[in-house]
Amino acid sequence: MDLQAFLSEKRAVVEDYLRAIFATLSTSPDVLKDAMKHSLFSEGKRIRPILSLAVCEAKKGRAAAVLPFACALEMIHTYSLIHDDLPSIDNDDLRRGKPTCHKVFGEAVALLAGDALLTEAFRVMTDPRLNGNAPPEVAKEAVYEIASAAGAEGMIGGQVVDVLYDGKEGTRNILDYIHRNKTAALIKAAVRVGALAGAATEKELEQFTRYGESLGLAFQIGDDLLDAEGDERLVGKKLRKDITKQTYIKHYGAAQSRKKLDELVREAVQAIAFLGPDGDMLNKLARFVGKRTF
Amino acid sequence: MDLQAFLSEKRAVVEDYLRAIFATLSTSPDVLKDAMKHSLFSEGKRIRPILSLAVCEAKKGRAAAVLPFACALEMIHTYSLIHDDLPSIDNDDLRRGKPTCHKVFGEAVALLAGDALLTEAFRVMTDPRLNGNAPPEVAKEAVYEIASAAGAEGMIGGQVVDVLYDGKEGTRNILDYIHRNKTAALIKAAVRVGALAGAATEKELEQFTRYGESLGLAFQIGDDLLDAEGDERLVGKKLRKDITKQTYIKHYGAAQSRKKLDELVREAVQAIAFLGPDGDMLNKLARFVGKRTF
Repeated sequence: MDLQAFLSEKRAVVEDYLRAIFATLSTSPDVLKDAMKHSLFSEGKRIRPILSLAVCEAKKGRAAAVLPFACALEMIHTYSLIHDDLPSIDNDDLRRGKPTCHKVFGEAVALLAGDALLTEAFRVMTDPRLNGNAPPEVAKEAVYEIASAAGAEGMIGGQVVDVLYDGKEGTRNILDYIHRNKTAALIKAAVRVGALAGAATEKELEQFTRYGESLGLAFQIGDDLLDAEGDERLVGKKLRKDITKQTYIKHYGAAQSRKKLDELVREAVQAIAFLGPDGDMLNKLARFVGKRTF
Repeated sequence: MDLQAFLSEKRAVVEDYLRAIFATLSTSPDVLKDAMKHSLFSEGKRIRPILSLAVCEAKKGRAAAVLPFACALEMIHTYSLIHDDLPSIDNDDLRRGKPTCHKVFGEAVALLAGDALLTEAFRVMTDPRLNGNAPPEVAKEAVYEIASAAGAEGMIGGQVVDVLYDGKEGTRNILDYIHRNKTAALIKAAVRVGALAGAATEKELEQFTRYGESLGLAFQIGDDLLDAEGDERLVGKKLRKDITKQTYIKHYGAAQSRKKLDELVREAVQAIAFLGPDGDMLNKLARFVGKRTF
């Protein structure tokens, strides 16, 4: 199967499931659901849940086994964008080509919609209506994996340092901390829950972890390159706004960043060589992350 | 044992455990941990975790079995206060007698500290270092219970309607929705996870649920009465600020509210009559909620 066909097939699976999640919310206020949906259904690449699905599939696992965790990750990613865009953090008006959540619903509702997406992500992972088939020990481990990756030692930790060092000198160590946590942690978790749901062995999980880590860092360097060199109309958000931020471009220059990105993609591909032909789509996904233009 | 001794014993158990949680956070930025601690260790009543402990104890369960869930609830309660206090929602400067989180750490860090407390709550419930003894099916059910109570159909739903109807006419139905969700849902969940960890039967869980529901509503009516009639120095936050909000006082008057509160406490006490002498402390806790002055 070619990558574009795979991506659109999986994107449809993810979006159907996300819609099914909203069908389980009956008593919540409409404006809250509208605000959550505004940001959740907005032409996202769905790269995290697609990675989870692809890894699970490479291990011959069923999509149903990984979908609650895959979609929880997408909900968490989306909440983090809503909160990032708020005036007290990045103060962004545009995201994925649409006005940001607080621009449409006001700051209070946007803040609470973010909180709700984060909270509901954990509900989804454990809701018997949605994950009836997940063995409790897999659900418990996936919640732990995802909460750790999204929490104070993961995504939020990275986000805090990103905010603190905005406009400051910074070091390569600081840059590394931000990149490993702000973006890569959740991408690594996406790969790991895919492996978990696909019943990977301990040894295989280690290799998948290496794949996820390399891919996560590659993804963030790609983001930095896009911000510096990308086309605003294609990317769907305001670019050239990271000049005060700690980026790979700032600390290593564009040419070195591109080299590092290519190296990480190679490392990712090597890490899953053990899969043989079953790793075909994961290889393509890694190369795609290396070359994306949006 | 008398109630005050019970409360301070349990408060100490909860606070030791909360400190142990922070000891598991090694790589997160100090400022983030400081902001989380600022709000988490600030003379809270710890009513939610104490309820969980008391219910579990009434069923002869071990404290260790319920502590991760009890403390997760306290973390979630605390995050909701941090976000509520932000300028875009209630814009409060004072909480539990101290400056609010954003007053000390700035809005961006306060927002992220709230996010981190919410996320870490789910980590705590599933972290093998902290809940090694919780059977996976109990952990899964507790995560579901707590995420549902804290999410779009629970606390956040109530919070959204509270914000939307601030300064509006409102109806008794609206008031009921806000009260049931904004405060009572989490208190009910505290009681239910205590019962879950104490291996209550299905039938007992129903009774505990009734206890938790009545107590949760009683607690919120008590809050409304305190805001209208309490002593600011005792309560440790700004009072008389709910005049634009949907409160029991506004819709029923103070005398009727007091009557409703007493009635709910009686209902709570009745719901756990089946426990006999084992329900002694839960009775006292219900009466305490009926009479609190802070």
